[in-house]
Amino acid sequence: MYLMRIGAPGTEKPVARIDDETYVDLSDVVGDFDETFFGTGGLDRIRPVVAERAASGQVSRFAGERTGAPIARPHQILCIGLNYRDHAAETGQAVPDEPILFTKSPNTLVGPDDDVRIPRGSTKPDWEVELGLVIGRRTSYLDSVDDARDAIAGYLVVNDVSERAFQMERGGQWVKGKSAETFNPAGPWLVTSDEIDDVLALDMWLDVNGVRRQAGSTKTMIFDPCFIVHHLSQFLVLEPGDLINTGTPPGVGMGFDPPVWLQPGDVMELGIEGLGAQQQHVLGPR
Amino acid sequence: MYLMRIGAPGTEKPVARIDDETYVDLSDVVGDFDETFFGTGGLDRIRPVVAERAASGQVSRFAGERTGAPIARPHQILCIGLNYRDHAAETGQAVPDEPILFTKSPNTLVGPDDDVRIPRGSTKPDWEVELGLVIGRRTSYLDSVDDARDAIAGYLVVNDVSERAFQMERGGQWVKGKSAETFNPAGPWLVTSDEIDDVLALDMWLDVNGVRRQAGSTKTMIFDPCFIVHHLSQFLVLEPGDLINTGTPPGVGMGFDPPVWLQPGDVMELGIEGLGAQQQHVLGPR
Repeated sequence: MYLMRIGAPGTEKPVARIDDETYVDLSDVVGDFDETFFGTGGLDRIRPVVAERAASGQVSRFAGERTGAPIARPHQILCIGLNYRDHAAETGQAVPDEPILFTKSPNTLVGPDDDVRIPRGSTKPDWEVELGLVIGRRTSYLDSVDDARDAIAGYLVVNDVSERAFQMERGGQWVKGKSAETFNPAGPWLVTSDEIDDVLALDMWLDVNGVRRQAGSTKTMIFDPCFIVHHLSQFLVLEPGDLINTGTPPGVGMGFDPPVWLQPGDVMELGIEGLGAQQQHVLGPR
Repeated sequence: MYLMRIGAPGTEKPVARIDDETYVDLSDVVGDFDETFFGTGGLDRIRPVVAERAASGQVSRFAGERTGAPIARPHQILCIGLNYRDHAAETGQAVPDEPILFTKSPNTLVGPDDDVRIPRGSTKPDWEVELGLVIGRRTSYLDSVDDARDAIAGYLVVNDVSERAFQMERGGQWVKGKSAETFNPAGPWLVTSDEIDDVLALDMWLDVNGVRRQAGSTKTMIFDPCFIVHHLSQFLVLEPGDLINTGTPPGVGMGFDPPVWLQPGDVMELGIEGLGAQQQHVLGPR
């Protein structure tokens, strides 16, 4: 299934995308794609509903609605740092021995085509196309990496927007540079795991103003999604609907010489093979 | 007001404590002390209700109910590191130039007397009595430190339980050592700001097995609560009901020579003048 939330911010409607033109409305059977939904077997519950409505033609046509993030604001947004060998190199940092964990404020989550706003005082705003994953059930102390497979509801495109001066020069911990409003565009779809043949063979890309800046593949990840979920489950309890951003490939702005930072008026376009594409206009501080 | 949530985990009832024996039940007028409550003027709404019911004797008697955390699981738990001069010294780190920000998973929040569980693989579990504050309204880009006063709903005792090996030796960011289940006992009360004469003159203490380990005062904080809220509001949007742990005074286990770590069977008792006291039994890994 390809889950989406469409409509104005705060009043998005949960739907299942059938194709570019049509969707199945799920707002009569689902409150939202949130912690309760994932934690109570929501995916299994809607699967026959979507199949039956699609088969019987109970579909609606997209009519230019805004696309929201495909999940509701999660309990937490966890992020893995330096998870592509070449990206670690371009930032001048060593390849980590184990996943580096940092967080973003959950209220950074916005739709895939919403504007990204540069925060006040920012001098080094940057982009990061990433494979995101959504946790499908309460998860703690997984016995094996293999057990993580069933804990993952699906995958999506995220832009882990970052302010490098806030991240690196304001006290040592990264969260200050990751949590400004609009800093986590997500979507357009949450693609359930069963739709993806090999999550470790997906091309990914990001352009700024039409110039290709990031071109990579999930095959160069250091720690794969199941490894990450198993690892994190040893340190904390993952809740249904939690979002994990799994790291970015080479080509972020801080990796250029001289560095390239986002400017008001820039347009970011990014995507991952099979997971859809995003486009954000960059705004100056409010 | 002294707000409490009493009852079994997940079904706590919102009440206002009148004294050690009695409380005003607010469950007919408040869903929970959560983001919606704080964000819609809930404190102002219940103030006359509490006064009227207390005056007219519409009070209930405590009957041994469990005390939950005085707020519902928040959107985020933000923490300030090294915010007491002597604590920075005991950990061998420099006094910071500005507040160091890190986070805990929101699902670490438990009641003030709930058990604290040592996580699997832990070798260095530690304690931290702290002044916590709760955000009273959506807060972003405050113009001045003084403006932060109105953004703070109240204060409470928190124990920022920490696993030092996970915090310091597992990738550089602190969140892995701060987010195990049960790692954020909070309460017993949320004391609204108007009840506190001077939040920068409160004694605070923590005992382990009856031995005084931490004895300090909020007067030795480096960055005070209003400074912290103003500062954080420049980097991220604070939501109503967000919890901020403002740092710990000297006397944590890692500061002793040799260090003193928590053991299963230990009992922690801690408190802050005017904000009540907590007691947690320490359990081994599950």
